[in-house]
Amino acid sequence: MSGRPFLALTMGDAAGIGPEICAKTLARPGLWETCRPLMIGDRASMAAALESLPAAGRPSFVPVSPREMEGLGPGTPEFGGIPLYQPGSPLSGVVPGKLSAEAGRGAVEFVKAAVDLAKAGRVAGIVTAPLNKAAMHAAGFSYPGHTELLAEGFGVKNYSLVLSARGTFVFHATTHVSLRRALDLIDENRVYAQIRLAHLLARALGRGGETVAVAGLNPHAGEGGLFGTEEIDSILPAVERARAEGIPVEGPLPADVLFPRAARGIYRFLVAMYHDQGHGVFKTLYFDEGINVTVGLPVIRTSVDHGTAFDIAGKGMAKDESLAEAVRLAASLGPVWAEIREAARAALE
Amino acid sequence: MSGRPFLALTMGDAAGIGPEICAKTLARPGLWETCRPLMIGDRASMAAALESLPAAGRPSFVPVSPREMEGLGPGTPEFGGIPLYQPGSPLSGVVPGKLSAEAGRGAVEFVKAAVDLAKAGRVAGIVTAPLNKAAMHAAGFSYPGHTELLAEGFGVKNYSLVLSARGTFVFHATTHVSLRRALDLIDENRVYAQIRLAHLLARALGRGGETVAVAGLNPHAGEGGLFGTEEIDSILPAVERARAEGIPVEGPLPADVLFPRAARGIYRFLVAMYHDQGHGVFKTLYFDEGINVTVGLPVIRTSVDHGTAFDIAGKGMAKDESLAEAVRLAASLGPVWAEIREAARAALE
Repeated sequence: MSGRPFLALTMGDAAGIGPEICAKTLARPGLWETCRPLMIGDRASMAAALESLPAAGRPSFVPVSPREMEGLGPGTPEFGGIPLYQPGSPLSGVVPGKLSAEAGRGAVEFVKAAVDLAKAGRVAGIVTAPLNKAAMHAAGFSYPGHTELLAEGFGVKNYSLVLSARGTFVFHATTHVSLRRALDLIDENRVYAQIRLAHLLARALGRGGETVAVAGLNPHAGEGGLFGTEEIDSILPAVERARAEGIPVEGPLPADVLFPRAARGIYRFLVAMYHDQGHGVFKTLYFDEGINVTVGLPVIRTSVDHGTAFDIAGKGMAKDESLAEAVRLAASLGPVWAEIREAARAALE
Repeated sequence: MSGRPFLALTMGDAAGIGPEICAKTLARPGLWETCRPLMIGDRASMAAALESLPAAGRPSFVPVSPREMEGLGPGTPEFGGIPLYQPGSPLSGVVPGKLSAEAGRGAVEFVKAAVDLAKAGRVAGIVTAPLNKAAMHAAGFSYPGHTELLAEGFGVKNYSLVLSARGTFVFHATTHVSLRRALDLIDENRVYAQIRLAHLLARALGRGGETVAVAGLNPHAGEGGLFGTEEIDSILPAVERARAEGIPVEGPLPADVLFPRAARGIYRFLVAMYHDQGHGVFKTLYFDEGINVTVGLPVIRTSVDHGTAFDIAGKGMAKDESLAEAVRLAASLGPVWAEIREAARAALE
């Protein structure tokens, strides 16, 4: 899949801001220079969302059928517009801002269709607009979240979220486990794998010279063993192993030294030891600006880090910066995804 | 000690920005309306620091002897200037920005003198300018930090740091212990005590109606028990107990929900479960702006949250906002310190 990668863009929950931000992002000039987007969503919802855009520069959609989708792939000629694929039946009765099982049903179908396209090798990556958990549950799907839905579709058990905003990336040695379990899980291999993953991503972005900064686990990064020994036993050996392989890396640094420096742009590839260590600071600094990258799936997956924003749905006020950045990042990762996937496998096994 | 409390202000390391920020803070109009400061430091260093101030409004110092100090106390008439007490011998050969055992010796003596004054009931509180650990160690004092020096002086084993900046206060259920030990320590009583301490401080500041927001310990605050049970077993019961007593309190909230809200001013009295949870975000948001309040000592103690800044020492560029805020906060806590101290004892025993 040389050149611009095919990327599936899923519309998310039709009652939220998903259709609007998808339309806005697809209308951005320059987008087509980085990728070939494939919209997966509800035709009527996307048509309504287009109304919020100025007529000039408004993208056009070309509905494609399952049969036409089968023909999509490397070398496929450009369509007269953005191919829009609607899996399942059209949505009916969805009102912007109102929780709807129908919208929840659609959101799940769009993601499942994207997974099928990815498994068939039709798209190199998936970019997801937000779905609403409660709507998804109302539709009878019990997934805890978006990523679990994708992981099940791909038959993947181990995956990890990388947080990203304004060129900063936060990796996690552990994520959705209790803090006590995180302490049991952290070892040299796990930390090393995340350092390597961070460096590979940096390289993929042409920033391989940048330092990977690794957080300590304990207060003051253990204060020389006084407040815990994980730094001495696991984190420092992982840092030294990565350094011996030529990876520019620093740490373990106390969290209250590392993150203030990161906020000033001194470090932009960070490895946190546990979920809240990374997420607490990241969401405080970037609120809803962030994007997520899921590593461990066979294809690239990026997503916005914000929700469906029912309160402003259908009003034309939604900002698509986060989604546009998610598309750009997915496109830029295309050429190096295979390498990142392998590093992720080693990190997550 | 009715009215404006006597506060000892210690100069810190003479080679750092301590003398300068003390001089600047003491020159602030309005300071005397809140407290009666007592400068403890080196006479020559303070005289040099005064040179960085405009002549108009420059404070004057009145050297006081140990014997005169003994006469200080409630009802003591105002001096013709700020009383400056120099314990020990004058410092010699200290150069701004150069690590110096002599400056380290002085810094320790100033703090010890402040402790003695406090123990004798002469001051209601101590506000400390930064000392330099390496200089203190070079002078033969092996204290890990400023607070340990104070704690030893007062014979106190249990104390806790509260972080403060721009009206926000962060309390910690655990602090300088390994993360694994923190998990073992956290129980309902410990969390409850910090909630109560936070509420007492809020009340002391005339803000008793503000909500105390309590962080969860695990990702997503445990996600209903899926990622750990400390929220269910310890944190929620502590929150409910405090609420039953009429304290406005919310939680446990996921750290990546609580801190973003706090950054937007929605919550300003926060209880973190462990050192890095509070410190990581706090120092990222406020860098060197923050101040510390030490609770658990018999007297009020506040301090700046920044270091000696050797790189700008003696250049007249240092900012005293943080120190001035530390003085203001110490003054405002005067009337309620006894109550806070009792709550701290219960919290830390």
